[in-house]
Amino acid sequence: MQALICSVGTEILLGNIVDTNSQYIASHLKDMGINVYKMVTVGDNFKRLEKVLKEDFYDYVFITGGLGPTEDDITKEVVMKVANKNKLLVDKDSLRALEEYFSKDDKAIDINKKQAIFPEDAIILKNPKGTAPGCIIESDKTKFVLLPGPPHEMTYMFDKEVAKHIMKDSFIKSVTVKTAFLGEWDMASRVDLSGENPTISPYATDNGCILRITASGKSEAEVDKLLARGINDVKESLGDYIITFEDKRKEEVLIDILRERKEFVATAESFTGGLIASSIIDIDGASDVIKESYVTYANSSKHDLLNVSYETIEKYDVVSKEVLKEMLDGLYKKTKAELTIATTGYAHLGKVFVGVLYKGEYIPKEYNFKGDRNRVRLRAKNRAIDLAITLMRGKYDNINI
Amino acid sequence: MQALICSVGTEILLGNIVDTNSQYIASHLKDMGINVYKMVTVGDNFKRLEKVLKEDFYDYVFITGGLGPTEDDITKEVVMKVANKNKLLVDKDSLRALEEYFSKDDKAIDINKKQAIFPEDAIILKNPKGTAPGCIIESDKTKFVLLPGPPHEMTYMFDKEVAKHIMKDSFIKSVTVKTAFLGEWDMASRVDLSGENPTISPYATDNGCILRITASGKSEAEVDKLLARGINDVKESLGDYIITFEDKRKEEVLIDILRERKEFVATAESFTGGLIASSIIDIDGASDVIKESYVTYANSSKHDLLNVSYETIEKYDVVSKEVLKEMLDGLYKKTKAELTIATTGYAHLGKVFVGVLYKGEYIPKEYNFKGDRNRVRLRAKNRAIDLAITLMRGKYDNINI
Repeated sequence: MQALICSVGTEILLGNIVDTNSQYIASHLKDMGINVYKMVTVGDNFKRLEKVLKEDFYDYVFITGGLGPTEDDITKEVVMKVANKNKLLVDKDSLRALEEYFSKDDKAIDINKKQAIFPEDAIILKNPKGTAPGCIIESDKTKFVLLPGPPHEMTYMFDKEVAKHIMKDSFIKSVTVKTAFLGEWDMASRVDLSGENPTISPYATDNGCILRITASGKSEAEVDKLLARGINDVKESLGDYIITFEDKRKEEVLIDILRERKEFVATAESFTGGLIASSIIDIDGASDVIKESYVTYANSSKHDLLNVSYETIEKYDVVSKEVLKEMLDGLYKKTKAELTIATTGYAHLGKVFVGVLYKGEYIPKEYNFKGDRNRVRLRAKNRAIDLAITLMRGKYDNINI
Repeated sequence: MQALICSVGTEILLGNIVDTNSQYIASHLKDMGINVYKMVTVGDNFKRLEKVLKEDFYDYVFITGGLGPTEDDITKEVVMKVANKNKLLVDKDSLRALEEYFSKDDKAIDINKKQAIFPEDAIILKNPKGTAPGCIIESDKTKFVLLPGPPHEMTYMFDKEVAKHIMKDSFIKSVTVKTAFLGEWDMASRVDLSGENPTISPYATDNGCILRITASGKSEAEVDKLLARGINDVKESLGDYIITFEDKRKEEVLIDILRERKEFVATAESFTGGLIASSIIDIDGASDVIKESYVTYANSSKHDLLNVSYETIEKYDVVSKEVLKEMLDGLYKKTKAELTIATTGYAHLGKVFVGVLYKGEYIPKEYNFKGDRNRVRLRAKNRAIDLAITLMRGKYDNINI
């Protein structure tokens, strides 16, 4: 099955915004076994959109944008022409949703009413995040899936409404696995990525490498069975490198462990400059597990706040395992947090030390990362969280990377 | 003048990566007066790329990706066919660059040699950031501009090499203005954005709102004069809301001011959790102006580390101007930094306080931001830096937002 993904919007052609919708749709279609043939962006222009939709035959055409209330919003009209649909009707549910959204403001409802009008046999896709509903319009050969442009509306609609209509005679489910320590490229040597059902695909994210396991089949039971097999394979291949099968950032997993044990974390950060603390505080519920943290960038503050000795700095350099250890010891003394995390490093060189101390167990790691300062910091932050989770789980001895 | 922007890469169609190159090119073409007609993404497939390039006539076709050394990399071959170029030659400079890059490793050079081969009349675009040079290939009607796929290579090449070849008979220059406090939408009411030469366009970035002023003309002198006029207009319209006309993040401007005065900054962050400190430490040279900072998330750490009184927290709530003031006073007492910055807030509600204290002058601000927790934190961070810069410059009294 072949698909075209088309985004409509002059603001994209002007370079005002990056189109992230196409990537989102593409990555999910891949899991559904639908092949994306091409992606196209056109402006809010009837003839150009019409031309793009007529250039080839596709089983599916996904269009984002151009569903709003203004003259510029031409997506539905173009698809109706291409799919040869003439009979229109007002969808009562959509109109009611608009009336509620605009709290009975007649003028606003009138302006927006266009968004509740569809070809008579279209499948309507609700949009609880905005005003423009989507729809699926079928011609003889093609299913046109029309989705709103704002990414948070589009992704919500895609997840809740689109998949079930597309996979009408079949079921599809995915599970995302968060992993520790491993890069996207380590996955190929550890996990069999060649399976067709379930598929297993690695992705690099700013929260470390993830694997998406996706199964499809004729019944829910069949899909669940296939998915369970995929999960089992990944478990066997990756073992203690797995952080979670749940839809959580790794910081959230760390917070869960700490909350359950009623324990606290504190950080003393040099080159990461507060990034580890802020990544933890970003998560709901962080206030149960983190009270304070320190950014000790200068030697003097490592000394004054954490009691790192100037002799150690002099003898081993401030970027050294020895200074890291004294930072952790000082931090523990000061905060009594069960888990302490420290960093010292040269971000611009990629030479960094990351250390964790949990109830007397101390793991120092030296890394030589490539990339710019921000990438080095981000990777160090992820490794720090990875180290903390595996150490607290008592699994660190099984890691050899 | 009409342009097509085409990105080549199966990994984009699979949803593995977001194509940011097209947006970058589009936003710069707009400033050059070149109209983007369409954007297309195709996989690494000869026939499909050929078809896309033949669909319409364009003055310019910008293609990113597919310039590497493997079988999959087909961009040059396809363009040669479409532009009807048959004679090839090895570009000596490009070959020498490859030899240097691979330190005389003959096998690697052999594999990569393809990247030094071009049609005989192509203009070669150097790639100091990677191995694949770009090129400009001209047919009767169209200039094909071939650029590498990795964004940091592409943007560098575009900025350094492409503009000057495209604007051969004319000159173009832009200046980017960083602003404080204002959003993209505030700009329309304060600055005349309707001019055609120079053009002035606002963009929202993660470092606050920027304005790009772009002028073009037949001579460098003419362009400089137009650009100076644009800069002057922006100065008159925005006054003390301007942070810099230089290509710097606002944190860098703050660091410059502190360095020049030989002064220090310290932060005490609650809901921002270290984001302000890490945004400063991200910049080269930060070690001259920041020694330490505190993340005081819990009430107890606000009390223990900053001496905020429990009575104040009890009486006014921890998210209050009164607690903010005590945080700043405590922070100053502890660090003696000339500039101190503090935050306290409910990130999930968007209700936040941001305060700065500089040599006895104290500015507390309450904000009610929309958006998710991360957006609220990012905006608070930007406002904190804005406040610090305008206060240190003695310009805060002229701000009324």
